[in-house]
Amino acid sequence: MKALEEKILSDGEVLPGGVLKVGSFLNQQIDIKFLMAMGKDIANAFSGLGVTKVLTVEASGIAFAVAAANFLGVPLAFAKKNKTSNVSSEVYSAFVDSYTHGKTYEIMIPKEYITSKDRVLIVDDFLACGNAMKGLCKIISDAGAEVVGVSAAIEKGFQGGGDELRRMGIKVYSLAIIDSMENGKIVFRKN
Amino acid sequence: MKALEEKILSDGEVLPGGVLKVGSFLNQQIDIKFLMAMGKDIANAFSGLGVTKVLTVEASGIAFAVAAANFLGVPLAFAKKNKTSNVSSEVYSAFVDSYTHGKTYEIMIPKEYITSKDRVLIVDDFLACGNAMKGLCKIISDAGAEVVGVSAAIEKGFQGGGDELRRMGIKVYSLAIIDSMENGKIVFRKN
Repeated sequence: MKALEEKILSDGEVLPGGVLKVGSFLNQQIDIKFLMAMGKDIANAFSGLGVTKVLTVEASGIAFAVAAANFLGVPLAFAKKNKTSNVSSEVYSAFVDSYTHGKTYEIMIPKEYITSKDRVLIVDDFLACGNAMKGLCKIISDAGAEVVGVSAAIEKGFQGGGDELRRMGIKVYSLAIIDSMENGKIVFRKN
Repeated sequence: MKALEEKILSDGEVLPGGVLKVGSFLNQQIDIKFLMAMGKDIANAFSGLGVTKVLTVEASGIAFAVAAANFLGVPLAFAKKNKTSNVSSEVYSAFVDSYTHGKTYEIMIPKEYITSKDRVLIVDDFLACGNAMKGLCKIISDAGAEVVGVSAAIEKGFQGGGDELRRMGIKVYSLAIIDSMENGKIVFRKN
């Protein structure tokens, strides 16, 4: 998605440690028209594949999942990172190593929100090492459901998670793939 | 919004301790068409009031904020509950007592996401004691911006937060107001 590459170059910021900050339009603050355009693009990429549900992880994936689900016309669900007092039922869960936060956390979702009949599209704002995506794949597999594909707004190609998922035979659609951020210079993968 | 009252009665669940579980359509799993209908309803209620931004708190408010922002045609932003490694700039913050989680947490948002020119609509899925809403009001006030109003999907009228905000002169629009949940029986406030 050319428009996203342009927005990353104009509004994104490369921080020390390989962190790309896009909080001004894609994360903590969201440009709603741009978000909806991204959701439409994802829905087009996965149209006709029988997606029944969009799945993500709280918190930054939620807005993106709403946009994709809106154009696919299917419900969405998100895995939570912390057990809260109103999670009473049994859950599917997976452990995820977070690159950004430098720690391991557990993601979980009540069993009733994924059934063996579901064909699931996993979405998130970022795809780096792919650990969150792999955790969601495990949850979907545990539920006996099927992974239709994985979609991220921004894939950090140099961290290898996206290509690893592709080698596993999973359809991966990222709106922008960054192959290098060395010295703060962002280089996108050519299609 | 009559449709929400009906959905709460058919799909909601009253748990011990005054917790209303609506995770199957409004929180951890989201009925996207219903979410968008709620967003449209909120946008109608605040149309013509010059809203420039929708503000919420992660995580469960985000989907709702996306829906409202979509129909208002303005950006949204959310306050985070935990400081992460990619929050580098100065933040506005407030302390919030959580009824559901039984603890106090800090919410924060980078200063550049709210300016003194903003006219802000605060949205969240629930309005109970109103602590999260009051925390967001403090943040907006600290930024020198204006609170146009507060909107929640479900207001627990018996916990008083909504009426307290109304007495402060704030326009509060809740799609469903529950005045009692005694013995698991849900009673809505009449308009």
